[in-house]
Amino acid sequence: MPVYRLAPSSNTVIIAEGIRKGDRRALARGITLVESARADHREQAQSLLADLAGDRAHSTRIGLSGTPGVGKSTFIERFGAEMTGRGHRLAVLAVDPSSTVTGGSILGDKTRMDTLARNPAAFIRPSPSGGSLGGVARRSRETIALCEAAGFDMVIVETVGVGQSEIAVSRMTDIFVLLLTPAGGDELQGVKRGIMEIADLIVVNKADGDLKATAQRTRADYAAALRLMRRRNGDAEGFPQAVTASSIEGNGVAAVADLIARLADARRASGFLASARQEQAVTWLEHALETRLQDVFEQAVPKEALSSVHEAVRQGDVLPEAGAERLIELYRDAMRKG
Amino acid sequence: MPVYRLAPSSNTVIIAEGIRKGDRRALARGITLVESARADHREQAQSLLADLAGDRAHSTRIGLSGTPGVGKSTFIERFGAEMTGRGHRLAVLAVDPSSTVTGGSILGDKTRMDTLARNPAAFIRPSPSGGSLGGVARRSRETIALCEAAGFDMVIVETVGVGQSEIAVSRMTDIFVLLLTPAGGDELQGVKRGIMEIADLIVVNKADGDLKATAQRTRADYAAALRLMRRRNGDAEGFPQAVTASSIEGNGVAAVADLIARLADARRASGFLASARQEQAVTWLEHALETRLQDVFEQAVPKEALSSVHEAVRQGDVLPEAGAERLIELYRDAMRKG
Repeated sequence: MPVYRLAPSSNTVIIAEGIRKGDRRALARGITLVESARADHREQAQSLLADLAGDRAHSTRIGLSGTPGVGKSTFIERFGAEMTGRGHRLAVLAVDPSSTVTGGSILGDKTRMDTLARNPAAFIRPSPSGGSLGGVARRSRETIALCEAAGFDMVIVETVGVGQSEIAVSRMTDIFVLLLTPAGGDELQGVKRGIMEIADLIVVNKADGDLKATAQRTRADYAAALRLMRRRNGDAEGFPQAVTASSIEGNGVAAVADLIARLADARRASGFLASARQEQAVTWLEHALETRLQDVFEQAVPKEALSSVHEAVRQGDVLPEAGAERLIELYRDAMRKG
Repeated sequence: MPVYRLAPSSNTVIIAEGIRKGDRRALARGITLVESARADHREQAQSLLADLAGDRAHSTRIGLSGTPGVGKSTFIERFGAEMTGRGHRLAVLAVDPSSTVTGGSILGDKTRMDTLARNPAAFIRPSPSGGSLGGVARRSRETIALCEAAGFDMVIVETVGVGQSEIAVSRMTDIFVLLLTPAGGDELQGVKRGIMEIADLIVVNKADGDLKATAQRTRADYAAALRLMRRRNGDAEGFPQAVTASSIEGNGVAAVADLIARLADARRASGFLASARQEQAVTWLEHALETRLQDVFEQAVPKEALSSVHEAVRQGDVLPEAGAERLIELYRDAMRKG
């Protein structure tokens, strides 16, 4: 069977060339295509991405999460300076499905990271606004591919601690970092348990001044909690772990960079990273297929039938399987009619 | 739109009557129908379940998980004696999708709980063998419905700590209990982080003899870990929590029963339990629909096309969305042809 691939248009060929040379304006144009909802743009984006597809095994993709106020931008500023100082070219993206609700993108204001924004080895892209998490995630994955094609070998995907966005980010990155603030004693931080599940590294930020001792205790608490849980396959010895850092004084940031480099190297050497990325691609295929199958279903089955079965199941009048069976019958009929 | 409901056959009417009277043989016959894969049995089972559908608001459904060796059966024996002593009628079921692999059902041997098996207020049902987790889960939910119709007001659904079965069990129960053994210091128990996520109550079992002090420390460790995580909506004050128990000496078992009763009462009083069950029913409808849509899709699209697209996406030659789009086109064509 031939593989599905669109013919590149002259427009996308020019953009692809520019991106390969590392031209930022071409990269920005490519990302604009990827973020557009217009059907012709979607086609061009797919053709551009197919054109640029290739081996990116030497990039490192880092997911970074933390609630507002934890100091994410200041941390990324410091961390970005450290990583570009080590010769990396760094792209910073954001996944923020809440931005349509809150009205503000988490990276909307580039001035939040003004030093990094002026760094020629760094590229900062605000969160695309609007759309479902699925749509935002799709655009973010495609933007990662474009940044890597433009020569950025390290990509940070930032997200806020809301709902399912961390899970989505962990499915497009190699390493997941959770940023926390120092919190004393019984003061809960409200870390979602599902996020503990995916964290490779917990960084207790603001470990400076009066908060230093509290940060140490918080670190120890989370280290103990992590020890009670199971490691991921392919983890280097000692991971997941919890450390402290001060974005203001700079303490601990180089250590975080070292840890991330060590974990990325270990996962690359063991083949874990390559196979994890392959599995991620298949997972995204399955998600995309599920979403599209759902679309086809919803176009075919009348809304009233759907909500009447939902309500009957909710009220306990119809069992879930019987309800599903009824809907499948309606669906088959509708599909047959074309 | 009329609601989908099968007409009860004379066979199922007799079984339903027996179940309503609390006749154990009728209950066993009903469960056999529910567990059967035969199409006519599936129809009869659906008709039986529709016949018996009704208000079960006063039952309490408890999910119980623990790795082999943690002493689940001994704990259930003690706990069952405590609960039947308090006037409850208790059914014990198992969800074990691994049983086809390991060859042994976790509750296959009723003699593991021989006191409870002879208790007239208790009903023990071994794990249905074989099938996917989805199939096992469906049968378990239907068995819960039959047990409740037969007057069992407390249902324990037992599972082993493998993969996704805990999540499935938590989606069919009101309260989730995780059983652990005492483990000293850095000795890892390999609790999956996703299981910590859903536990309302962690019971460190075997808190007797030499292990008593270790059990206390283990309890404190997990209590601290739970404090670092977020509570579920609708949780009573103080939940999730960690306690110790000894199934052999009996210490702590009554306290566990008290805690479960308190949490169930709080969740019932707040309306959380009723709305959670409604949401569970809708979730299962969506799962069943997804599974059935997947079936329809797999029947329509040739296996070779599917695996060729999968492989192209895995290798990075085709992007996930483009692959999904290609498959959807093939699917639409096939469905139109009927």
